[in-house]
Amino acid sequence: MRFELTRSLLERLQSDVEEGRDQDILAVLSELHPSDIGGTLDRLTLDEARYVIRLLEPETAAEAVLELDEDVREKLLEGLTSREIAEKLIENFDSDDAADVMADLPEQKAKEVLDLLEDEEQADDIEELLRHQEGTAGALMAKELISVRADSTVARAIVDMRQQAKEVEHVYTIYVVDKDDRFFGVLPLKDLLFSAESTRTLIKHICQTDAVSVLVDTDVEEVVNQMKKYDVVVLPVVDTENRLVGRITFDDVMDVMQEEAEEDYQLASGISEDVDASDSPMVQVRARLPWLLIGLAGGILSSQIIGLYEEELRIDPKMAFFMPLIAATAGNVGVQSSAIVVQGLASGALAHVNVFARLWKELRVALLSAVICGTLIFVVNLALRQSQALSYTVSIALFTVILTAAFFGTLIPLALDRLKVDPALATGPFVTTLNDIFGLLTYFTVGHIMYDLFS
Amino acid sequence: MRFELTRSLLERLQSDVEEGRDQDILAVLSELHPSDIGGTLDRLTLDEARYVIRLLEPETAAEAVLELDEDVREKLLEGLTSREIAEKLIENFDSDDAADVMADLPEQKAKEVLDLLEDEEQADDIEELLRHQEGTAGALMAKELISVRADSTVARAIVDMRQQAKEVEHVYTIYVVDKDDRFFGVLPLKDLLFSAESTRTLIKHICQTDAVSVLVDTDVEEVVNQMKKYDVVVLPVVDTENRLVGRITFDDVMDVMQEEAEEDYQLASGISEDVDASDSPMVQVRARLPWLLIGLAGGILSSQIIGLYEEELRIDPKMAFFMPLIAATAGNVGVQSSAIVVQGLASGALAHVNVFARLWKELRVALLSAVICGTLIFVVNLALRQSQALSYTVSIALFTVILTAAFFGTLIPLALDRLKVDPALATGPFVTTLNDIFGLLTYFTVGHIMYDLFS
Repeated sequence: MRFELTRSLLERLQSDVEEGRDQDILAVLSELHPSDIGGTLDRLTLDEARYVIRLLEPETAAEAVLELDEDVREKLLEGLTSREIAEKLIENFDSDDAADVMADLPEQKAKEVLDLLEDEEQADDIEELLRHQEGTAGALMAKELISVRADSTVARAIVDMRQQAKEVEHVYTIYVVDKDDRFFGVLPLKDLLFSAESTRTLIKHICQTDAVSVLVDTDVEEVVNQMKKYDVVVLPVVDTENRLVGRITFDDVMDVMQEEAEEDYQLASGISEDVDASDSPMVQVRARLPWLLIGLAGGILSSQIIGLYEEELRIDPKMAFFMPLIAATAGNVGVQSSAIVVQGLASGALAHVNVFARLWKELRVALLSAVICGTLIFVVNLALRQSQALSYTVSIALFTVILTAAFFGTLIPLALDRLKVDPALATGPFVTTLNDIFGLLTYFTVGHIMYDLFS
Repeated sequence: MRFELTRSLLERLQSDVEEGRDQDILAVLSELHPSDIGGTLDRLTLDEARYVIRLLEPETAAEAVLELDEDVREKLLEGLTSREIAEKLIENFDSDDAADVMADLPEQKAKEVLDLLEDEEQADDIEELLRHQEGTAGALMAKELISVRADSTVARAIVDMRQQAKEVEHVYTIYVVDKDDRFFGVLPLKDLLFSAESTRTLIKHICQTDAVSVLVDTDVEEVVNQMKKYDVVVLPVVDTENRLVGRITFDDVMDVMQEEAEEDYQLASGISEDVDASDSPMVQVRARLPWLLIGLAGGILSSQIIGLYEEELRIDPKMAFFMPLIAATAGNVGVQSSAIVVQGLASGALAHVNVFARLWKELRVALLSAVICGTLIFVVNLALRQSQALSYTVSIALFTVILTAAFFGTLIPLALDRLKVDPALATGPFVTTLNDIFGLLTYFTVGHIMYDLFS
């Protein structure tokens, strides 16, 4: 069943496009699932891809275009006319996908496309979806759903559903509303199909009334949590008056999950969102340089701090030997502590734990690690025949920075979370830089005291 | 609709448990969705939770227990008898959940539970699932599905489905098999319900035969990709002879996505998998200490390398000032480069790019960053009135380490991926440590040359 695009197939397709052998192109692509056609378009040049899209049936073209990488899609659409976008693509999209694509178009072109849509209801739906703020349930939902009245009979409801089903590609559940269009409950297709109820039974007597719904302004993270928690494939979205306004399906939620995971990983790795391997070097530099400059500023600050202790370095240049060890350990411990907090916040495991309980636990972990690492490095330094002053300095400083890095590593993501900033920022270069500086300051302060003591 | 467990409700529940007011407990919990009962059990002590589970209806208890954190669930089950586990829980689980829970039981107890199951078919299903290797479609799938023969009439098929539907809680699609039980196609419930076909139509004439399926030994990552690509809510699983053996639903795939995202994030943060905020300090130390010791070993190695250049440090202790800057930048650049590769590999964007093309692009990014950072620090050092030798050393070393860190940062995750090791390891402390060491080596080598030149 799986399709693998071979180089020879790709080359054949490209030469077919070049020489305008339209029938051959369609013959090759007719064998493929639209998602795989999308994967194939991704490998063509933009002009080739546009040529193929113009050949394809609108439904197929629309599905294939949805599979494209967002950047590629945006560029591709730049070369299509408003009429092509409207008739070939938007009219064949579900409302949520249509709104996503429209949101990326230049304002003027989006307006033109909206005006060109034949179905006015679709145009209204898209306009409504575009009004919702990004990152809310409203911006994620689709308008296509099947709803029936709670006081209809099963027979009546089936007629209503058949009518609506033409507009909705995937139906997982039927929504039940009261006479004021307020959300009343859900009726899984399975119950309708396999129940032995008479066709005169009222829907309200067979539907499930304990169904979960989300408000239109609910944060998408909360939407993801609700869907995972209740294992529902589709979530109804209601407005503040409990009127049913849309539905969110599992595939949209999967996309959100992936984006959020990528965001955390990127924050931890010091690259801005919205940059990936396919971006041009210039775009990548723009996304990555700010983090490097933060590191650079930290490094300059470090140099100034070390400068304060130039005298110590003159007395014993060996002091410099262990700077990397102290800084790296401070960084590692801090990132570990922050990562545990970030994951605890994400999973909800820390939702009911107070800050002091969390800190106290983390400090016990740190204390044990600090004793082990501090002792180990002391033994190593004895074996390396380092001076007493240096050996004590390294061990005491290491012990101290492990504790302080764990302390700040725990506190910073918790504080960021309170301030509604993504706590994953704490596992990135910014906090690592702070830990570096603080670690060196500790090291030289301890060194200053120890060299006095042992001189 | 959303439930928020309040402290007062929790306290009331705990005192009800303590004084054995069973009716009151059930009255409180009957208001809640089983998933929320699971969330509530999470906040009770293990003994309290077991008391509540014994009170609940088996279906409710089973659903609530599935919502528990895996560690909590494992401990909870330790205190339940094999009979309780079999009758209260396993018999009410779907086969995939049953297999997951059984896999965590001690061998002897798992055997007892299997023997106690009333439904022999269920026991066989669980045994079969437990035989599949973890991380494959077979280990993720459930046996519960509805299948009909391709050559049945719609009327006959509906009778068959009704029979099977009792065993399957969520039905998204009907599977169609040929007379040898080979996978033939799918029949979405919607098509069955809303098509105007006569009841004498043969199923094979109305089902979709281009449906995606996965082999039982397919890697779960590939399963996730297939489900995302084709936006299907449930994937049929077939054996090597194309016989239908199970199905994987979107909720299982969401769990896998989450686990994989967490794994990458943890690798990048230097904490072992399977450790979280709720683990005891001892468990956490065990998971985190190895990474700290790697860092420590790197630090000791650094100290030896710097030791080789003690003479340089004696001549100009200011050499030490910029060690953190060099090491931190090398680390930051390396992690950025690796993270871009890791994400490209995960999204498939790098599947068709060759190593040299990738390296060449990354080197152009690095070159631009290196020129900017190297120039910037040179200007800063002029402003700080550092010596010429030191200013050139810092800038040339910084320039060099940005290029080399980008080179290794790109190459290492690509190599790990080839070796079937998770490439995200490259964004963790291990590679950062290597970059630190390599950065310092570069710095002192350049310093050695520059101080000779300017002396």
